[in-house]
Amino acid sequence: MERTWNVYLSGEIHTDWRSEIEDEAKHRGLPIRFSGPVTDHPASDDCGVAITGAEDNKFWHDRKGAQVNAIRTQTLIKDADVVVVRFGEKYRQWNAAFDAGYAAALGKAIIVNHDESLTHPLKEVDAAALAVAETPAQIVDILDYVITGRLAGYTDKR
Amino acid sequence: MERTWNVYLSGEIHTDWRSEIEDEAKHRGLPIRFSGPVTDHPASDDCGVAITGAEDNKFWHDRKGAQVNAIRTQTLIKDADVVVVRFGEKYRQWNAAFDAGYAAALGKAIIVNHDESLTHPLKEVDAAALAVAETPAQIVDILDYVITGRLAGYTDKR
Amino acid sequence: MERTWNVYLSGEIHTDWRSEIEDEAKHRGLPIRFSGPVTDHPASDDCGVAITGAEDNKFWHDRKGAQVNAIRTQTLIKDADVVVVRFGEKYRQWNAAFDAGYAAALGKAIIVNHDESLTHPLKEVDAAALAVAETPAQIVDILDYVITGRLAGYTDKR
Amino acid sequence: MERTWNVYLSGEIHTDWRSEIEDEAKHRGLPIRFSGPVTDHPASDDCGVAITGAEDNKFWHDRKGAQVNAIRTQTLIKDADVVVVRFGEKYRQWNAAFDAGYAAALGKAIIVNHDESLTHPLKEVDAAALAVAETPAQIVDILDYVITGRLAGYTDKR
Amino acid sequence: MERTWNVYLSGEIHTDWRSEIEDEAKHRGLPIRFSGPVTDHPASDDCGVAITGAEDNKFWHDRKGAQVNAIRTQTLIKDADVVVVRFGEKYRQWNAAFDAGYAAALGKAIIVNHDESLTHPLKEVDAAALAVAETPAQIVDILDYVITGRLAGYTDKR
Amino acid sequence: MERTWNVYLSGEIHTDWRSEIEDEAKHRGLPIRFSGPVTDHPASDDCGVAITGAEDNKFWHDRKGAQVNAIRTQTLIKDADVVVVRFGEKYRQWNAAFDAGYAAALGKAIIVNHDESLTHPLKEVDAAALAVAETPAQIVDILDYVITGRLAGYTDKR
Amino acid sequence: MERTWNVYLSGEIHTDWRSEIEDEAKHRGLPIRFSGPVTDHPASDDCGVAITGAEDNKFWHDRKGAQVNAIRTQTLIKDADVVVVRFGEKYRQWNAAFDAGYAAALGKAIIVNHDESLTHPLKEVDAAALAVAETPAQIVDILDYVITGRLAGYTDKR
Amino acid sequence: MERTWNVYLSGEIHTDWRSEIEDEAKHRGLPIRFSGPVTDHPASDDCGVAITGAEDNKFWHDRKGAQVNAIRTQTLIKDADVVVVRFGEKYRQWNAAFDAGYAAALGKAIIVNHDESLTHPLKEVDAAALAVAETPAQIVDILDYVITGRLAGYTDKR
Repeated sequence: MERTWNVYLSGEIHTDWRSEIEDEAKHRGLPIRFSGPVTDHPASDDCGVAITGAEDNKFWHDRKGAQVNAIRTQTLIKDADVVVVRFGEKYRQWNAAFDAGYAAALGKAIIVNHDESLTHPLKEVDAAALAVAETPAQIVDILDYVITGRLAGYTDKR
Repeated sequence: MERTWNVYLSGEIHTDWRSEIEDEAKHRGLPIRFSGPVTDHPASDDCGVAITGAEDNKFWHDRKGAQVNAIRTQTLIKDADVVVVRFGEKYRQWNAAFDAGYAAALGKAIIVNHDESLTHPLKEVDAAALAVAETPAQIVDILDYVITGRLAGYTDKR
Repeated sequence: MERTWNVYLSGEIHTDWRSEIEDEAKHRGLPIRFSGPVTDHPASDDCGVAITGAEDNKFWHDRKGAQVNAIRTQTLIKDADVVVVRFGEKYRQWNAAFDAGYAAALGKAIIVNHDESLTHPLKEVDAAALAVAETPAQIVDILDYVITGRLAGYTDKR
Repeated sequence: MERTWNVYLSGEIHTDWRSEIEDEAKHRGLPIRFSGPVTDHPASDDCGVAITGAEDNKFWHDRKGAQVNAIRTQTLIKDADVVVVRFGEKYRQWNAAFDAGYAAALGKAIIVNHDESLTHPLKEVDAAALAVAETPAQIVDILDYVITGRLAGYTDKR
Repeated sequence: MERTWNVYLSGEIHTDWRSEIEDEAKHRGLPIRFSGPVTDHPASDDCGVAITGAEDNKFWHDRKGAQVNAIRTQTLIKDADVVVVRFGEKYRQWNAAFDAGYAAALGKAIIVNHDESLTHPLKEVDAAALAVAETPAQIVDILDYVITGRLAGYTDKR
Repeated sequence: MERTWNVYLSGEIHTDWRSEIEDEAKHRGLPIRFSGPVTDHPASDDCGVAITGAEDNKFWHDRKGAQVNAIRTQTLIKDADVVVVRFGEKYRQWNAAFDAGYAAALGKAIIVNHDESLTHPLKEVDAAALAVAETPAQIVDILDYVITGRLAGYTDKR
Repeated sequence: MERTWNVYLSGEIHTDWRSEIEDEAKHRGLPIRFSGPVTDHPASDDCGVAITGAEDNKFWHDRKGAQVNAIRTQTLIKDADVVVVRFGEKYRQWNAAFDAGYAAALGKAIIVNHDESLTHPLKEVDAAALAVAETPAQIVDILDYVITGRLAGYTDKR
Repeated sequence: MERTWNVYLSGEIHTDWRSEIEDEAKHRGLPIRFSGPVTDHPASDDCGVAITGAEDNKFWHDRKGAQVNAIRTQTLIKDADVVVVRFGEKYRQWNAAFDAGYAAALGKAIIVNHDESLTHPLKEVDAAALAVAETPAQIVDILDYVITGRLAGYTDKR
């Protein structure tokens, strides 16, 4: 009867931060079902036209892809207990900020992950979060504490 | 712990498009629970009077049937992650458009399926959809990509 | 992966209509989880004071009981796909009408069950229902059709 | 910039309790917009058929009327801050209990008004209310206190 | 402090049924704010491309227009107390059925208006309505009764 | 197909009332999944800074911890059918009252548990509850009755 | 067409902090409609029994009063854009924390006001707020900035 | 009785695009109440600390400011019929994308405004919009058409 937590991992798709979190969570035996966007960049860009036909106009090429991806992302974010949003060093990442706003309006618990250097431009996003982490390892620690109550240096000392 | 997706197949009931989709989805091993309206046309028309008594007036005959069917359709559409709405060549199919509007107001992800020839009269319905497909095969491809991230010509090349 | 339907049986508690429905549904193998109020009349009346202490004033005796019962009924009605409300021959049964209004505002599919003689005073309740049945047997037929698509005289003729 | 309170007066239509409340509220200058069902009994019963055509079957005669009335009652109850439900001595008054359940599920503040003799059969309805009054005069006192903070014997002594 | 009712008039745009209703309602002094879609057919079809630029592909031409129109229609339907949906003799009118479904999921009071000949294909739409009228004059009578309680042959006889 | 009830145990963390309830519920075989806040006081106070870095300012030290805890508490309260809130003898316990208000606005069934001496200052909290218990044993009796219909002295006499 | 902001002032009722805020807001010409609980302590305690009859049992005396007050407070909090919650030096003030939780679950913008000495016990309440102020003057400055964009030392320097 | 439309102008604060839109809308007599964030950049950055006290840590300086601004922006976005989001040439503008996501989850009608060069990185934001405009002038044309039905080249030709 253990509760399964749904955690959506939004944002940056060019490093392996998702597996870092997923592997460590699995290692610790946390009852989490992770989800996230499709992380294959070309597939994510072209999914719309690849399936329902090419578009001459790049605007509609992008629209088709973004909307097919939205079937996945909106469904999974609505289903999530916790939405983690990571901002990396590259690209504009407006979709990550969009996901954060979307999750905030739905009342989801949000954890933002970014380097300290991005603190000022991300202040509105951070302000909607219940935690701001600098590393994937911190995110696992937060999830572990939130789900099991374990906190290194505290609950392991009893 | 794999997520099961609920997909409601609304609309046309005179071809075997539902089995086409369901069979192929099963063949690919997609974790989908499909649902839809009762597709036996006479049963669907007469269910109300057959169970709770005949009506002299055709209007109320129809009303009784439509409301009994609504117990099924409203429950399953509310439960769906994705609502697929197919418009065929025949009949007015106002119930299909009604379902699309119903799903849209509930914020469901909508996929519309119709022949290109219906593009203009269906523009308001299409505009509420996240994808417009011309064939059942495309719908399976969309569901496969959305759920598993697989995209032929892309993710199978790694 | 078969869907389980939640059906709440509200109203009259002095005949065995609930078992009639439950037994026949079980016999037909319908995937339904039935729920309903506590049907032991004295326990239902006294549950509040029996557990949290007697009240001199009958008004508060009743209040305590009604609110403890509400923990059960509100939770299960909110959880239901279909709410069946039966009005019998005796008592005022305002709680049954209350449940119907409660279910209506939540957008639940409602089936009302009463004798034809009550049609006029129950017209507002009936008007919020998707089906009005005269017997428990009709209710099972409706649930069977709604869930499985089976309709005697129609789908069994194929 | 004074706030106007919307108060819906549901239930019994055979005494002048609505005018009693409205007149006294007006006399005290309370900023209330009262609403309620159509209280002309024959008009209320026949409105459906009178406008959209007669029905042979009394069941559908009633259905048409009840649904036309529902356009009014549902709209005004959804719009209300406070829903007052009065139960009189006569008739089954299931529509009053239905309104109470409807208002409860919408989270409206409910005041119930009935004679002490009805306490037991109305216990589930009372349990959903924030106040149970025995007279229309008490209802005005409650509305006055709630809106202006005035309480005879207290705030008039300062 | 009189309440203003918002009534949205959806559907057929090729006859003057909207003015018929609006003129008569004005004549009777009903406190209604009517709204509806843009009824200039060419403007409605081309609004997207006329403002934000032409599209080679008719599909996107239509999409742009339908979405600009949706800014209006979704806002006004959400704002409406009552949604009237009229089906005429011509065109597919899927947008009318879509609006009806949209309004139904939002819990709006719906009045459908169509000729008797369309009863069977519109049965699912009718089943979601609180009234089905055959003429604009009946719609005004319904609105008049619902808002003021006046019913010809009844309340004018007192 | 038995229903599992989610019960959140909010409030006092310095006595073993949670285990009392959980043990007895287990003993009786009740299908309940209990949840609650992290009850290790130092871990609960320091979780934020322990994971995401120390703060010089005690205000932000507290903020970080309270928000990490909120990931757990908000998720589990939203998920609960019943929220039990216990007020003990010590501390201000504003978080318990906050949880009660939070649960009330979400429409959860609330059971409050406190000593009779706290009745007056807790009157607004009690007024939002469906039951007020003085002991953990009473809470188990309420849950048992609500879930199974069993009531000592009544249903065990048949 | 200027927007009126609804600001609810919850909490402490033994100092004149509400007038401080209201007077200064009026002085600055801010378009705010303030509301709050009844602040006459004896009237607030006794309103239930004073209107609907005395109770022997203090528990029900309190219940009646708390529920009559809830008609006012729940209505006005639901109506508010901003909920300000002030904690003073005296009393348990669980109703203030309850209001904060209630407002948080409704997604209201919350401003908490308390002395620095209460920071630790109020950390969960503060964590749900968008601003924590130490004085009523700061609250007016926040409201002024939020509504008009004026900020002393900044916008008055242009 | 003319309807006033609430339009929120989110995003870029370094050009005068808001006045362009507001002036032209006023010139055309459109019944719109515009709102938006505080556009004084230093005030917006420092509002939190300027009112409730300085912070040594830049992270909390930013947090305080972002949350005070959120009182304004969340309230006004929730209140809006239409949310316009403009992306300029400079800065990361994650707050604009956040607002778009927030508005999308609330079901608001969204108009995005950006240069064609930003089409690819903004595809997820555009996909949630009902119109994508390249200039403020187009936005006024859209609002004019949506509110009044006027379309240059069409409705002015009658």
